[in-house]
Amino acid sequence: MRAALFNGPRDVTVGTRPDPVIQEPTDAVVRVVLACVCGSDLWYYRGESPHEAGSIGHEFIGLVQAVGSEVSGIKVGDLVVAPFIFSDMACPNCLNGSTITCPHGGNFGNGHTDGGQGEAVRVPLAGSTLVPVPGAGHSDAVLKSLLSLSDVMSTGHHAAICAAVRKGSVVAVVGDGAVGLSAVLAAKRLGAERIIALSSHPERQLVATEFGATDIVEARGEGAVQRVLELTDGWGVDSSMECVGTTAAIETAFAIAKAGSTVGVVGVPHGGLSFGELFSRNIGWKGGPAPARIYIPELLEDVLAGRINPGRVFDYETDLEGTPDAYAAMDGRRAIKSLIRVGSL
Amino acid sequence: MRAALFNGPRDVTVGTRPDPVIQEPTDAVVRVVLACVCGSDLWYYRGESPHEAGSIGHEFIGLVQAVGSEVSGIKVGDLVVAPFIFSDMACPNCLNGSTITCPHGGNFGNGHTDGGQGEAVRVPLAGSTLVPVPGAGHSDAVLKSLLSLSDVMSTGHHAAICAAVRKGSVVAVVGDGAVGLSAVLAAKRLGAERIIALSSHPERQLVATEFGATDIVEARGEGAVQRVLELTDGWGVDSSMECVGTTAAIETAFAIAKAGSTVGVVGVPHGGLSFGELFSRNIGWKGGPAPARIYIPELLEDVLAGRINPGRVFDYETDLEGTPDAYAAMDGRRAIKSLIRVGSL
Repeated sequence: MRAALFNGPRDVTVGTRPDPVIQEPTDAVVRVVLACVCGSDLWYYRGESPHEAGSIGHEFIGLVQAVGSEVSGIKVGDLVVAPFIFSDMACPNCLNGSTITCPHGGNFGNGHTDGGQGEAVRVPLAGSTLVPVPGAGHSDAVLKSLLSLSDVMSTGHHAAICAAVRKGSVVAVVGDGAVGLSAVLAAKRLGAERIIALSSHPERQLVATEFGATDIVEARGEGAVQRVLELTDGWGVDSSMECVGTTAAIETAFAIAKAGSTVGVVGVPHGGLSFGELFSRNIGWKGGPAPARIYIPELLEDVLAGRINPGRVFDYETDLEGTPDAYAAMDGRRAIKSLIRVGSL
Repeated sequence: MRAALFNGPRDVTVGTRPDPVIQEPTDAVVRVVLACVCGSDLWYYRGESPHEAGSIGHEFIGLVQAVGSEVSGIKVGDLVVAPFIFSDMACPNCLNGSTITCPHGGNFGNGHTDGGQGEAVRVPLAGSTLVPVPGAGHSDAVLKSLLSLSDVMSTGHHAAICAAVRKGSVVAVVGDGAVGLSAVLAAKRLGAERIIALSSHPERQLVATEFGATDIVEARGEGAVQRVLELTDGWGVDSSMECVGTTAAIETAFAIAKAGSTVGVVGVPHGGLSFGELFSRNIGWKGGPAPARIYIPELLEDVLAGRINPGRVFDYETDLEGTPDAYAAMDGRRAIKSLIRVGSL
């Protein structure tokens, strides 16, 4: 099959990998329909974190082509959403909301395992991993939104859940990438009354506003902190969400959090701050890689009912052969998030 | 009046301070019955943190001697429990569970304000700060337990609340000081099924066991982590509580936490660890100075009903003139926690 391949920093090509087949009775093989590039894919693309040469991509939706003898709940022909990792959904970690630490789970597109950015994927633990999509004849907009559940929208939702967003909350989102924008939408969906988006890019501000942001703060750093405090009479927000991961963003997210609140953190932290700082104001920290598999069913329901359109974060598209430019577009900030049309329904 | 005075590291004496009087219509004056020494008092005693010369102590129960014209809910003659700070209980911070950051609140015994370790205390914002104790003729054991609500038991309870201890939880407490022991009792009270106490001191192990610990782990550092993981089939505990504040203790508390859980933190952090560590296992951090005023009413009910006896942490006692040795006893680990009998009922 054709599949995108990582060869080294800023060197992604499309080549050939073996056609996936059922290897374990719990496997399924999925023919990919839509895939995309994740912000975290840019880390190895930019040489900031290691990645073995070979398969890439961990977000995809597709059609089930084959299932192993022990797979239940999924059948050939189903349209499925894949969460960005596979997991057993039965161990204490999965049951505790941390699918990322499932001892039987693992990654797609790690160089060796099939990646979403390819024509097909062998999915281990398919019965507990894949989420079938009911109905048929879904619009292209719905399909893009379903794809977003694979990672970015589930991650935005995780930020909101960790920050305890609820009906009437006053919230702020640090980060205007696809995850930050998804966090805005997730907060809106959970009933937040006031949603402050920190963004200095007009096209991202537009999406934030469409997703429910009530206030845009363009300033950065200390200026952003001052502005959010002004907007909240000096108290800070009920729920602050950190969707970047840099030290500067982490500091901002904590500085605008109301005393006694918990900051939801989904930007992979590349820095930190003194725990004493958090402690003195009773501010909590909660987050990590989203348990997408847990969130997909409820989010999917809202997508199919037309209540949310998280696929709006895709503002660039190409086909599988165009994958190298899908990376370059995000790397160069020409795109918020790149969609890859791999196959047809 | 007589009052303990801080003169400098390891130099506490008992001398004279002005008799407190009503200064604001929201004040009350309380004649102290029981006071005690806090683990945090040892920081300035040991010269590890600054403290202005003068009044000390922030934990006390006593009898109301006078009230200002705007004080409601409290009357002369009431036996009251004072939380370790005063606060308005009406601002967004207090309502969000962070009384420590109340903009109208403040500290007792900061050198200038009256301290609990003295014959009487002017209590600002008395109506929203002091908690009256119903009934009369309370036993000495009950009085000691009421005193513990002022700080140590409320702080242990805060650890358990922040760590989301609930019925059936498997928990661990790092730290066998008075706060750690109180966290054991708080976890038991909240229905924890298995309570692992990390302690290498026989007399503290005894209190931990009386308070509900089901397992004692004597090892420290990596050995303690291995033992707790063994006791939990490798998964870690549902609720880990950090009641020390050193980097080593923080590392232990996080290492034994189950993925997806939140560590309750009440040891004032003198160190930290990489946020990336927490993130990768979806582990949260929540804690800070306890909102004792919020917790006292429910804990008081259990004390009066004889369901909990948190005063058991006091294993040394003296009178006001003996305050210097009350500090020395805790400093030299001759005492878990020192009680000071200041006045009679």
